[in-house]
Amino acid sequence: MTTERTWPHPEVAADLTELRRVGPLTHCITNLVADNLTANVLLAIGASPAMVIAPEEAAGFATIAQALLVNVGTITSPDAEAMRAAASAAHAAGKPWVLDPVGAGALPWRTGIAAELVRHRPAIVRGNASEILAMAGAAGGGRGVDSTAGSGEALPRARELARRLGTVVAVSGAVDYVTDGGEVVAIPGGNPTITRVTAMGCALGAVMAAFAGAGVSPLRAAVAGSAIFKATAERAGRESAGPGSFAVAFLDRLAHIGLEGG
Amino acid sequence: MTTERTWPHPEVAADLTELRRVGPLTHCITNLVADNLTANVLLAIGASPAMVIAPEEAAGFATIAQALLVNVGTITSPDAEAMRAAASAAHAAGKPWVLDPVGAGALPWRTGIAAELVRHRPAIVRGNASEILAMAGAAGGGRGVDSTAGSGEALPRARELARRLGTVVAVSGAVDYVTDGGEVVAIPGGNPTITRVTAMGCALGAVMAAFAGAGVSPLRAAVAGSAIFKATAERAGRESAGPGSFAVAFLDRLAHIGLEGG
Amino acid sequence: MTTERTWPHPEVAADLTELRRVGPLTHCITNLVADNLTANVLLAIGASPAMVIAPEEAAGFATIAQALLVNVGTITSPDAEAMRAAASAAHAAGKPWVLDPVGAGALPWRTGIAAELVRHRPAIVRGNASEILAMAGAAGGGRGVDSTAGSGEALPRARELARRLGTVVAVSGAVDYVTDGGEVVAIPGGNPTITRVTAMGCALGAVMAAFAGAGVSPLRAAVAGSAIFKATAERAGRESAGPGSFAVAFLDRLAHIGLEGG
Repeated sequence: MTTERTWPHPEVAADLTELRRVGPLTHCITNLVADNLTANVLLAIGASPAMVIAPEEAAGFATIAQALLVNVGTITSPDAEAMRAAASAAHAAGKPWVLDPVGAGALPWRTGIAAELVRHRPAIVRGNASEILAMAGAAGGGRGVDSTAGSGEALPRARELARRLGTVVAVSGAVDYVTDGGEVVAIPGGNPTITRVTAMGCALGAVMAAFAGAGVSPLRAAVAGSAIFKATAERAGRESAGPGSFAVAFLDRLAHIGLEGG
Repeated sequence: MTTERTWPHPEVAADLTELRRVGPLTHCITNLVADNLTANVLLAIGASPAMVIAPEEAAGFATIAQALLVNVGTITSPDAEAMRAAASAAHAAGKPWVLDPVGAGALPWRTGIAAELVRHRPAIVRGNASEILAMAGAAGGGRGVDSTAGSGEALPRARELARRLGTVVAVSGAVDYVTDGGEVVAIPGGNPTITRVTAMGCALGAVMAAFAGAGVSPLRAAVAGSAIFKATAERAGRESAGPGSFAVAFLDRLAHIGLEGG
Repeated sequence: MTTERTWPHPEVAADLTELRRVGPLTHCITNLVADNLTANVLLAIGASPAMVIAPEEAAGFATIAQALLVNVGTITSPDAEAMRAAASAAHAAGKPWVLDPVGAGALPWRTGIAAELVRHRPAIVRGNASEILAMAGAAGGGRGVDSTAGSGEALPRARELARRLGTVVAVSGAVDYVTDGGEVVAIPGGNPTITRVTAMGCALGAVMAAFAGAGVSPLRAAVAGSAIFKATAERAGRESAGPGSFAVAFLDRLAHIGLEGG
């Protein structure tokens, strides 16, 4: 059964209020393209980002932070070590963590690492259709870090993956889908210019982690992140003239959404 | 013989149309300052960026992507390993690649690595005057990553370098020069604020790679990248109030150049 | 004795003129979130940034550059090696360097490295209250990279630390404080949106290094950086609608401050 959820659904609005009240310390091990935008997106929405990537520190910090994001976009071997340590520590400490398997399917080495990381039971796996298909064991294709499939096509496999891993799976696309294997939530809307701004999907994964770190259930955390991104993209699209001003307006709108005048 | 080429020269316009039609998957191993801007510039112009930097993945991905950029701006030893593997694989697979020897001349270790990388026959070497002089074996000076020479001063050595390597050499400056050793194309114009925005030259190297990845000849690829950057900088300069708004306007204008209303 | 200094204090204005005249080559070994913004901030104010991070190059470049920034925000083991080499070389060559101990206190591994780095006698140590308390050997708390204490609370320990190390200590907060152990300068003002833009504090440390690299004394360098950031933040706050447009306006205003029309 698929339901639709968009901003300002009362659950999403309540979860955003909670995120802002908690200001979750969100540990990110993400990629070199996304580091700056991810931190700015987390600050704009009201979370507290910290990029701690050394194998010497990652596990310890994962137990202090309220949530963890692991994104393999520009993964190297030392990063993989830090990711394993952090994911394992987060799981052991009962802290929710999000896996963003950027490029899975297209790149075999990282696909193997991502497959290994899911043993540490992420609360949410977020990716585009090709990445989710690859994680589900299907030949997902993918072209570099871009999907060659639509989000809807990946949905049946996303549900299987969610059931098999006991996790929530979020598939980003023209419509975002979030599923725990049973329930499916569709989040339509948004603005196509978001696909011309790098690392927006990566930042979304971090926001889902922040929601989970604020105590929101994984399903609602993923839905809240998607719904707020779609609504913010619509607003940014209306007041921008291209991908440069879109990114600026996106951060401005994200800081204000749900507040007076926002 | 030097000719001049500026936007909207019909060859440049045709090459841009072709780049947008192909949407070349452009593999970038670039520096930490440039990663985000480079991806955004490639997305804005219509290419598909992927930053894949692990030695475990770089060679394999270089054979999948349509072009490769290697930029040594913040090179470390593992990066050098990935760059060698990727450049070698790209050359073997017949994929064009661009070398941006940031800081060559000023920094001996990377100058040696850049000298070694050219054995894998880049389609284009792009740099400022000091970097090109250093690559040509002249004492180019250079001050950190900034040039201490004008682009015109480097032109005779740039031509020699192009002939010796059998490559196209692009020298960026107040006027950009592109040469294959015989022909020289001058690209005037632009706006000085671009020198106050970090990594714009790095992003230009990636755009040249994207053009080559779309099947455009190296000479035309380098000229097209320069001409479009100069024209976009002029437009951005007219609608901005400093380097912050210049960078935003540059991405907006780049997304629209050559399209209706752009 | 505490005095207050704000833009356009004649000493700050004179130091800014000097920075722009010299255009100090500023070597930065900083974090992955801050690399791009730091370079853009240095370019905007009139310095010349160069991020050189390989252990093979860091020491040599530290003797060529006019100043060095070491920021441990996303430190890894190879970074630590480069930082030690660069700090030691800068000190030996009589070049001023700035230490930004991001996350000290909250993260034991890097706290140890920061404690070791101060043996190379930084000209300035800049941090938030928690970080400065940690450097002073107090239990500073800290939550990831955010302070849990106000800048004023850290002032007595900041003075002790400055005396013990023979350095200038700068504590950032709602009011910035700069002290050499005797004199204390308070820099009020600013705009709270700056705390919603990542890496602004990191960029401030780089600007302090640039001032010192232009020959300004460490105390005045730290004061000038703080006073100009506070004034620029006020201006950016007036012309922006959220953290996205704030960051853009900050760079625009920084490029113009003290110049005609700025």
